[in-house]
Amino acid sequence: MALSDTDLTAALAAVDDGLETSLTRLKDLLRIPSISTDPANKADCAKAADWLVHELTELGFDASARPTPGHPMVVAHDQSANGPHVLFYGHYDVQPVDPLNLWHSDPFEAEIKTGPDGEKIIVARGASDDKGQLLTFIEACRALKAANGTLPAKVTILLEGEEESGSTNLAPFLESAKDELKADIALVCDTDMYDERTPGITTMLRGLVGEEIEITCANRDLHSGMYGNAARNPLQVLSEIVASLRNADGSVAVEGFYDDVEELPEEVAEMWRGLDFDGAAYLGEAGLKIPAGEQGRSVMEQITSRPTCEINGMIGGYTGEGFKTVIPAKAKAKISFRLVSNQDPAKIRAAFRAHVRARVPKDCSVTFHEHGGSPAITVPVDGPFLAAARTALSNEWGRETILTGSGGSIPVVGEFKHRLGMDTLLIGFALPTDNIHSPNEKYNLTSYHKGIRSWVRVLAGFGG
Amino acid sequence: MALSDTDLTAALAAVDDGLETSLTRLKDLLRIPSISTDPANKADCAKAADWLVHELTELGFDASARPTPGHPMVVAHDQSANGPHVLFYGHYDVQPVDPLNLWHSDPFEAEIKTGPDGEKIIVARGASDDKGQLLTFIEACRALKAANGTLPAKVTILLEGEEESGSTNLAPFLESAKDELKADIALVCDTDMYDERTPGITTMLRGLVGEEIEITCANRDLHSGMYGNAARNPLQVLSEIVASLRNADGSVAVEGFYDDVEELPEEVAEMWRGLDFDGAAYLGEAGLKIPAGEQGRSVMEQITSRPTCEINGMIGGYTGEGFKTVIPAKAKAKISFRLVSNQDPAKIRAAFRAHVRARVPKDCSVTFHEHGGSPAITVPVDGPFLAAARTALSNEWGRETILTGSGGSIPVVGEFKHRLGMDTLLIGFALPTDNIHSPNEKYNLTSYHKGIRSWVRVLAGFGG
Repeated sequence: MALSDTDLTAALAAVDDGLETSLTRLKDLLRIPSISTDPANKADCAKAADWLVHELTELGFDASARPTPGHPMVVAHDQSANGPHVLFYGHYDVQPVDPLNLWHSDPFEAEIKTGPDGEKIIVARGASDDKGQLLTFIEACRALKAANGTLPAKVTILLEGEEESGSTNLAPFLESAKDELKADIALVCDTDMYDERTPGITTMLRGLVGEEIEITCANRDLHSGMYGNAARNPLQVLSEIVASLRNADGSVAVEGFYDDVEELPEEVAEMWRGLDFDGAAYLGEAGLKIPAGEQGRSVMEQITSRPTCEINGMIGGYTGEGFKTVIPAKAKAKISFRLVSNQDPAKIRAAFRAHVRARVPKDCSVTFHEHGGSPAITVPVDGPFLAAARTALSNEWGRETILTGSGGSIPVVGEFKHRLGMDTLLIGFALPTDNIHSPNEKYNLTSYHKGIRSWVRVLAGFGG
Repeated sequence: MALSDTDLTAALAAVDDGLETSLTRLKDLLRIPSISTDPANKADCAKAADWLVHELTELGFDASARPTPGHPMVVAHDQSANGPHVLFYGHYDVQPVDPLNLWHSDPFEAEIKTGPDGEKIIVARGASDDKGQLLTFIEACRALKAANGTLPAKVTILLEGEEESGSTNLAPFLESAKDELKADIALVCDTDMYDERTPGITTMLRGLVGEEIEITCANRDLHSGMYGNAARNPLQVLSEIVASLRNADGSVAVEGFYDDVEELPEEVAEMWRGLDFDGAAYLGEAGLKIPAGEQGRSVMEQITSRPTCEINGMIGGYTGEGFKTVIPAKAKAKISFRLVSNQDPAKIRAAFRAHVRARVPKDCSVTFHEHGGSPAITVPVDGPFLAAARTALSNEWGRETILTGSGGSIPVVGEFKHRLGMDTLLIGFALPTDNIHSPNEKYNLTSYHKGIRSWVRVLAGFGG
């Protein structure tokens, strides 16, 4: 259903007028510690799902929490409009908060603070990733309904509770609810702006392969005075394996890793060369100077269009206060690969495991534990929905919308494509400085406010 | 004061008759969780010291706990005899107990169990290292006094509470109490038998250099989707450093590490060749097959007469349940070196730090924290005390006493030599299977019982 300029203006005014109460709702959602990876927070995840069902029901959606073997899915429909059918996706689960001592305020008691450049920010775990972002869409629906009584398009909302822990139950759920969820286009709000004043639509996403490995040497912890030298040390073995994963030129050393990696299409490469992306500033903001990835590739390439291998965690031996001269029996690492273009997660996982096995001494052993796998995604850059969204975003922000790539993985986009035959527009209002997955995560008040306004315009544009 | 055969027989009988109540005392001491490295156990360390003062006072010693900036020293004197003056040293502190879930019973509630070969064992943290061992000496004094009313030698007892945490306050204490502690010979009970039926006196001890390093890359934890590849990963940097510490042939790769390492004296090498030490069985008991140290060196050499570098702990990134795609800001390792012959701890520490610094990327940093340093010790193998002790031990165990080396470090021996001008006899009744520093630490009941009898004979021999 087309939206008149008057109706659009009314809806945008409703966003502005309702911002304070909208913030209160965001704070309520942020108060729920829905850390999906930690079994201790299972009830909190259910609580967050119920909170969303309640809000969406109040808004006139037909909403419910659907159980899975893990955390529930929230599904809500309002298909009363005549326009096209959109499926909006977000996730209500959040990352763990450790190390807690680095937070300047309670991660689950959102505070409005002033950022380094005088901007207002909302500080809490999930403020940006993804509770703040998903609420921009729901609050846009609220404003549209408040102003016009209805939405300009048929809307289905799908909110997942396991995005931060491998999305184990997403694929089976999509498979079982295929008919209910299939729409004309999917909208995902889990990505960044191009910069804080320039809207972006992400058309390239890296895939992910997560692995946990455990090396076992002796049958028990040993005393280094009694066994040191002769007994194989699993921390030494693990370190040698980790060190072997990178070549001196920064490339990944797993055999065949780059076999299916394609160069950027020339037109995209050309567009990126025209951008003012400052790799040194991007690294500098994180306190770094020297790009650690493949030599000869720009920072933008390294973080978006080139694959990587990262060590996400390692532990073994005595790590408490003081010193203990132990040779541990075991050592563990969590290792992940970010994939691009045609890299096959199964093939990369197998190549990694072969690489590791070849480096484990014959009297030691290794076990592998899988933590998710998804291929990279490239979203087509033509089509009416993308065009309408670009225009809507450019109108809201007063700047041309940039098409970009994201180094992160959003497996749901691949699932939507392969299971539901649906393309996805990745539109988000987060910033690289949001400290997502880190202490003191924040979301700019502007991201939230203009994010809501952006969705009002995007939905209006789809209906028009 | 010489001890007649009758007096010796009476004292040995007193040991046998008093074994049950002696075990009760050992259990009482084992019940105190005197983990010196953990600040949470500070009061427990003081409690263990007080328990020992109480027992020694009851035995007629002039005993007291002496405060230090860390845990107290226990000092006790009984110099009523006419014989030579011996200084006995042991330590009442114990190692941490993690991982607690691998213990089959409460580490601080000693239980008498049956070992794999039907032998009786006392299972508890400290049962062997060093509470069980130090009590063998005190209980020997008890039996001698019970049977004969006096000791055959002047005895000073020094019990430390920081042996497992770097002995920070030992040197200054020895310095300040030099005159009080100086004796004709020092006796240390913190070592192994040669095997479970053969007594041993350790005449070679490796030194120790402990280091903790922390690598810092970014100014905060980063999301690997946003920074992966371009941002330096401290776990990768740390792993590359650790991997670089060993050459492919098993030798330590720190520059100059072997400069001051001497080959074994030919007579010791000859004696060792004559022993039936089974390196494969020693490693096999720990579940290993391939010696990890320098190729071409026997297991016995690797664990006693050759220096080593061990990784005692590593931690960084997300190590909890599930997965977190983080690039941590920091990664840490605890690394120690076991030194031999003339290796200088200060020189080795400096060489290690230079090795590390050369491998830290320019935009990252490293901090070092020192955890103790002591040179290796070689005890002279002649002299009347050693001869008397060999005879006493051979008489008790019915087998020739073996002179051997220990891979562990007992810094106090160097301190006795350099500060007090005193040689040390290292006589202990522990076994390589005692799981010291590991879950399910144990001490054989035979070690305890015949250990006490051994000290009765050794002290009698000194007096005679």
